[in-house]
Amino acid sequence: MKVYGDMISGNCYKIKLVASILDIPHEWVHVDIMSGGAKTGEFLRMNPNGKVPTLELDDGRCISESNAIINYLAFDTPLFPDDSFLKAKVLQWQFFEQYSHEPYIAVARFINKFQGLPEERKDEYHAKQEGGHYALKVMDEQLATTAYLVGGELTVADISLYAYTHVAHEGGFSLDGYPHVREWIARIADHPNYVGME
Amino acid sequence: MKVYGDMISGNCYKIKLVASILDIPHEWVHVDIMSGGAKTGEFLRMNPNGKVPTLELDDGRCISESNAIINYLAFDTPLFPDDSFLKAKVLQWQFFEQYSHEPYIAVARFINKFQGLPEERKDEYHAKQEGGHYALKVMDEQLATTAYLVGGELTVADISLYAYTHVAHEGGFSLDGYPHVREWIARIADHPNYVGME
Repeated sequence: MKVYGDMISGNCYKIKLVASILDIPHEWVHVDIMSGGAKTGEFLRMNPNGKVPTLELDDGRCISESNAIINYLAFDTPLFPDDSFLKAKVLQWQFFEQYSHEPYIAVARFINKFQGLPEERKDEYHAKQEGGHYALKVMDEQLATTAYLVGGELTVADISLYAYTHVAHEGGFSLDGYPHVREWIARIADHPNYVGME
Repeated sequence: MKVYGDMISGNCYKIKLVASILDIPHEWVHVDIMSGGAKTGEFLRMNPNGKVPTLELDDGRCISESNAIINYLAFDTPLFPDDSFLKAKVLQWQFFEQYSHEPYIAVARFINKFQGLPEERKDEYHAKQEGGHYALKVMDEQLATTAYLVGGELTVADISLYAYTHVAHEGGFSLDGYPHVREWIARIADHPNYVGME
């Protein structure tokens, strides 16, 4: 299988980390998002929504959306629970990530780290801080009671949220007030198959 | 089971529609979101993220995030495919909905219909139009080739996207340019167990 991605994106890094933990062989095809690599006609045939990451199976079928891709890789492995309630909780955290976490933390990081905090996006950058901190607080409350987001075991929900949380400082978010999030980050980074973002 | 929701929200309506299609008995508990009903201490104990809908099972355990809830209700039914690839495609469309569709179409609808398009949100409302139309275009391209989003059968992916698409005009989005979306809306509304939003 081929993974089309750009490692400046935490959404792409999720695939890298899950593939490493599960030891899944794949070819990584770099798509330069800063120069419009995900908007070319060739790319849009794979993902009409024009976003990385996109997974291309050996038979040519494609899957997009980072959390859908890592779930596909993790079905029937310990990273994806069998139990219906736990499965729904994994999905709950992943939808939380895409709606209540990524649009604040990942976007603030992009504006700051990759665009150099330009004057015309400063208001937007500052407006992202409150929502990002709220998401971190929600995570910290959960991680005060369980080692991982959906209980005692690592699941894809943790990978989904780890991707941008462990680099949240690059978007201006200090993790000082979130001790359980910091311990959880250390726990994930300690996985024997861990691979970093850069 | 109890569903905490407010029917002005398409995210809550998804639960209503899936429960009706699958004939799942439940108690509907109205939470008035306009007056902060999802931000009370009592509600936050069920969903620390302070959003409806939230599902409370008979044993007191809770699930939030609309798409996680409808998937929980639909596991092991025809609305949720068994095949790994199809399952991943259902999730792909649901993540697309939460990231690339809802933040444009549902938010524009909220500003227009429930806030009366106030002066201070007019720029934001207009800025939502481009992203919403892009999402509709992506859906229309898919629905030109398949009757439903993930093939020939109705799945929860369709319910997730139907919720705000069929009321997109309330956010200023005409569906005139999306004939396959319009046919798909009619197809869903024709389901024998269909229930409307109001």
